[in-house]
Amino acid sequence: MPIEQLLPELAFLGPRASQNKSVLTHHAQSETHIHTRLPDVVVFPETTEEVSRIAAACSRHGVPMTGWGAGTSLEGHALTPFGGVTIDFSRMDKVLAVFPEDMLVVVQPGITRERLNEELRATGLFFSVDPGANASLGGMAMTRASGTTAVRYGTMRDNVLGLEVVLADGSVIRTGSSAPKSSAGYDLTSLMVGSEGTLGLVTDLTIRLHGQPEAVSAASCAFPDMASAVDCVTATIQMGIPLARIEFLDAASVAACNAWSGHSLPLQPLLLVEFHGSPAGVAEQAERFGEIARDYGSTGFRWAKAQEDRTQLWKMRHQAYPAILASRPGATAMVTDVCVPISALAEAVEETQADIEASPIPGPILGHVGDGNFHAILLVQPGDAAELTVAKKLSARMAERALRLGGTVSGEHGIGMGKLGFMPAEHGAAWQVMGAIKRALDPKGLMNPGKLVPQR
Amino acid sequence: MPIEQLLPELAFLGPRASQNKSVLTHHAQSETHIHTRLPDVVVFPETTEEVSRIAAACSRHGVPMTGWGAGTSLEGHALTPFGGVTIDFSRMDKVLAVFPEDMLVVVQPGITRERLNEELRATGLFFSVDPGANASLGGMAMTRASGTTAVRYGTMRDNVLGLEVVLADGSVIRTGSSAPKSSAGYDLTSLMVGSEGTLGLVTDLTIRLHGQPEAVSAASCAFPDMASAVDCVTATIQMGIPLARIEFLDAASVAACNAWSGHSLPLQPLLLVEFHGSPAGVAEQAERFGEIARDYGSTGFRWAKAQEDRTQLWKMRHQAYPAILASRPGATAMVTDVCVPISALAEAVEETQADIEASPIPGPILGHVGDGNFHAILLVQPGDAAELTVAKKLSARMAERALRLGGTVSGEHGIGMGKLGFMPAEHGAAWQVMGAIKRALDPKGLMNPGKLVPQR
Repeated sequence: MPIEQLLPELAFLGPRASQNKSVLTHHAQSETHIHTRLPDVVVFPETTEEVSRIAAACSRHGVPMTGWGAGTSLEGHALTPFGGVTIDFSRMDKVLAVFPEDMLVVVQPGITRERLNEELRATGLFFSVDPGANASLGGMAMTRASGTTAVRYGTMRDNVLGLEVVLADGSVIRTGSSAPKSSAGYDLTSLMVGSEGTLGLVTDLTIRLHGQPEAVSAASCAFPDMASAVDCVTATIQMGIPLARIEFLDAASVAACNAWSGHSLPLQPLLLVEFHGSPAGVAEQAERFGEIARDYGSTGFRWAKAQEDRTQLWKMRHQAYPAILASRPGATAMVTDVCVPISALAEAVEETQADIEASPIPGPILGHVGDGNFHAILLVQPGDAAELTVAKKLSARMAERALRLGGTVSGEHGIGMGKLGFMPAEHGAAWQVMGAIKRALDPKGLMNPGKLVPQR
Repeated sequence: MPIEQLLPELAFLGPRASQNKSVLTHHAQSETHIHTRLPDVVVFPETTEEVSRIAAACSRHGVPMTGWGAGTSLEGHALTPFGGVTIDFSRMDKVLAVFPEDMLVVVQPGITRERLNEELRATGLFFSVDPGANASLGGMAMTRASGTTAVRYGTMRDNVLGLEVVLADGSVIRTGSSAPKSSAGYDLTSLMVGSEGTLGLVTDLTIRLHGQPEAVSAASCAFPDMASAVDCVTATIQMGIPLARIEFLDAASVAACNAWSGHSLPLQPLLLVEFHGSPAGVAEQAERFGEIARDYGSTGFRWAKAQEDRTQLWKMRHQAYPAILASRPGATAMVTDVCVPISALAEAVEETQADIEASPIPGPILGHVGDGNFHAILLVQPGDAAELTVAKKLSARMAERALRLGGTVSGEHGIGMGKLGFMPAEHGAAWQVMGAIKRALDPKGLMNPGKLVPQR
């Protein structure tokens, strides 16, 4: 067995190469309905050199290698359908350097976004990408994560300036530079961001930071119906009002959040908005947004001007996922993640909600509507094959609808194992081009097999 | 000869396949010191299907294929060192569709940026990337162009949302979607943008547009010395003041612009700035910038509030290249294009200027300093081998300095033939990864050979 031949080569890691059953089991956990076999061994490297040595050994012995960050993926990215080595980056979690003048930070992949922001607090700068979950930076780069602030500060695509990457054979490359832009060759940084560990293992990241805004203002506003809320978003974007966040929750999501966190928001479609800027700028933006929202019938407008109120508001939003899970006791979730052009958002959301309402399972809808991105959290009882089939059909129809409207089957969660089946419909012949690139960089197909690219 | 076998297969193009000597010669022109042999034939396709048929035929017969946009490249991108077929996109220059609600436009690659903006005028939207030259959109995508407005609106990397691409074998793929973001697979759009025609021929582009700003204000301000001007830029960026443009010209560049366009700007280092936003926002930004500039010793502050004055100001800036060329009669230019982290900008510019002053050739400096990007226009007499050697050494030292400071050898002009020699120093082993991707997509090495990637 290749794995038996590999194990002696991992002995240099001592106890940081583990076959302990509970360690293996932990690394086969997923927040979703996707489950696979256990990895054969989990390693905890501390340096790039160790990662390189692990990859080279896996390559020699033909053993799959799969990265593990914080385990918060929603599409089974870090699972090991073919076993092999799971490379857990939790011991590579340092801030390596901060360059405040250039608004950059260099970090190891295992650091989580919350801890990074804690470490940056004294600098007046912050890392903007905020997917809700306290994910690792490496994992966020690999899934091209985004979240509530992407409408203003961009996704991981926009915020990763450079990477150190260990390739399948153990060689180490550096992509990008610390300059704000470059025209010097293929954009390998962008190729790696979103590649889900199928091309390489990231060992450090150069990340853009943003200045803490001088002034912040946030509000929640309820709407009579979903179309009004979504049309309000579209109008606001088209008016060019610079939103820092604009989030949508349908009435079912609001009910779940109220029950979970003790809020008493009206049980209506809700927008949560935030503005960043100078005091005068924020006041101007908030006023103009207020006018638009009223034009679209918003009632129950609540400003959260104090930091404490805003913290409450966004805490509620970030806990929407567990809140919705808890709204159907015992349920597990199939989380959909479509993204469409802004002009098609109302149609996409309305058709989706009608489809779910006509089905036997609940599926609250919420999303980062400023990006045209929304999720239905389809709640199914584990082991109920009929419900799972219903959820898969709803999810497939959402994907087809998004593609018909010029959108994508994944706005921010990635493909992993869960959405592999949608890739031919989205990309056509371009999916095979992804496969060709994969084979060029990983000819033995050992890096995170079973994910993203055509399987041989 | 492969070309003799290919020619009958191009007969379907009729007179749109030309071996006319003046047509061939026109397609071997370059604005730089780089010159190569003529192409064997120039074709003028009108549809994607024609481009596909041309590529498939070239592939079958092993003939190189090189795209041609507006011929404004500064690194010999569209030249044909190995002859073959030049594919001139001037007949594929249409706006295919405008989606004002999504702030997107779909265009063919041959349209120039000025004509695109003319066609968009009635929409209230504009295409932001502005490299000075009236380049084609296809060429701008392939070199990852940027220019004066990148500091606010981004480069081609940020403004190309999707592409239709003809691959080496004639197959056609579509990259990206019309959704504002996606996590569905490798970012082939970003891989193609900046690939200089070495991976495929772009046949349409989905481009982000921006709303015309409500208010615009611009100014020129002179500084006692270069360090003060550059430090003022750094301070402004770090204060988070949202600049729409911030351009630097050294005293020699100002002198050349005065002579060319009849301005009477003070012969001192100059910044040109522009602010976009709401009337109140622009006024606030301009006032804060004015304070910073005064702190750094700026004198001769001139506001250009009227549209006409701004047009004059930016016309002068855009004509800086011919103005500088004309400042040494008969000279040809080696245009350098380094880009460094903002914190290293003053050091990079000062060392460069001292280096040029100590040399026997003139080299005015100007640049998009808000991005850390600047150019020395090294002026040499054609045929003077000694001067060319001096220029090459100055350029090499600028590149080495940029890399030492964490930057890149090309901020926006690309690599082409002119900067190929710097690729190993900038990318190390990652350059070979670019080569592996190139071979995966173009195994015969027929797409724009001699550019960007390691040559076999």
